[in-house]
Amino acid sequence: MDDSNLIEQLRFLREIDRLKGVVRASPLLDESRKENSAEHSWHLAMYAWTLQGYAPGGVQMERVVKMLLLHDIVEIDAGDTPIHGTKGLDSQAEAEKQAAARLFGLLPATQAEEMSALWSEFEASETPDAKFAKSLDRLQPLIHNVETDGGTWRENGVSYEQVLERYGPTIRAGSPRLWDHAKGLVERHFEVGGRSAD
Amino acid sequence: MDDSNLIEQLRFLREIDRLKGVVRASPLLDESRKENSAEHSWHLAMYAWTLQGYAPGGVQMERVVKMLLLHDIVEIDAGDTPIHGTKGLDSQAEAEKQAAARLFGLLPATQAEEMSALWSEFEASETPDAKFAKSLDRLQPLIHNVETDGGTWRENGVSYEQVLERYGPTIRAGSPRLWDHAKGLVERHFEVGGRSAD
Repeated sequence: MDDSNLIEQLRFLREIDRLKGVVRASPLLDESRKENSAEHSWHLAMYAWTLQGYAPGGVQMERVVKMLLLHDIVEIDAGDTPIHGTKGLDSQAEAEKQAAARLFGLLPATQAEEMSALWSEFEASETPDAKFAKSLDRLQPLIHNVETDGGTWRENGVSYEQVLERYGPTIRAGSPRLWDHAKGLVERHFEVGGRSAD
Repeated sequence: MDDSNLIEQLRFLREIDRLKGVVRASPLLDESRKENSAEHSWHLAMYAWTLQGYAPGGVQMERVVKMLLLHDIVEIDAGDTPIHGTKGLDSQAEAEKQAAARLFGLLPATQAEEMSALWSEFEASETPDAKFAKSLDRLQPLIHNVETDGGTWRENGVSYEQVLERYGPTIRAGSPRLWDHAKGLVERHFEVGGRSAD
């Protein structure tokens, strides 16, 4: 029996083990350490499944989960890009494209194309599936920041207005209802808008 | 708008963040540290997607991915049970049942029932979906052990025959083809069966 496809697939699965070593800016909720991108991707897949009722009609949850499982794999080569950082976004986009070509390219051609296409769709954030996936990728760190007394907002001196500007459009585009709730959490955190942290 | 369901769902998503702190016996491939159960669950979901071609006909990949995403969540309360350990299996099963009731019980009733049912199906390992999911949950640590010069086998003095006995039936029941390949990797590792590590 020809195992050549299986050997390529297992090589890919070994290579992506390195995503567990890519450390993000966001803390775990118990603040014991920063989150890594592999466990973050698991958490987002659980977000998608649990919160699918807040996706606009027509969103296909299986595609959203797949996008979230693979959306950070390029960071194995290109590193994480914190939302509050100063990393050059153009050079980062180019590095991620090269990473996608190398990493998904480890797979047999059909699978490489499927994963590359889903990753590109996520990055472009134009389809309803991608918009919902992106909204969860913004919502989860927002919640971690609220729950850890400011988290990366506190570390980086990020204001209430900056939070609305950096999180709002993406979350709202994927799910107006989730943004409505998240905005309330942000208002309570910053004690603005008459909704103090009571 | 009534946010009571959403508040429960976000409480569940916050609670399961703790799975990132449950440390398994298996090492990461770079041996920098042990793997945690959240990143392990992510890796297994990627295994399922990548290796779906080796599942028996009729296996529904979306259900398999869901099982793998949630299969370890009970460890938040009950801890991990290493395959080569001496932990009492009866008391562990009872602790996991209680954990499932508490953790999935944080969700609105319909979702709690769906996740509990999928977790029970995985544990029972009787349906083709559950058998395939279980086979991947055994295959991934087998590969990590082979790739890290024996990993937990070396640590625990596990023999070739014990590896066949502890991994074989579960992997073969889910996918004879994957077991055929995995057995070859094990033979090469232990340098038996005429297939030396050449």
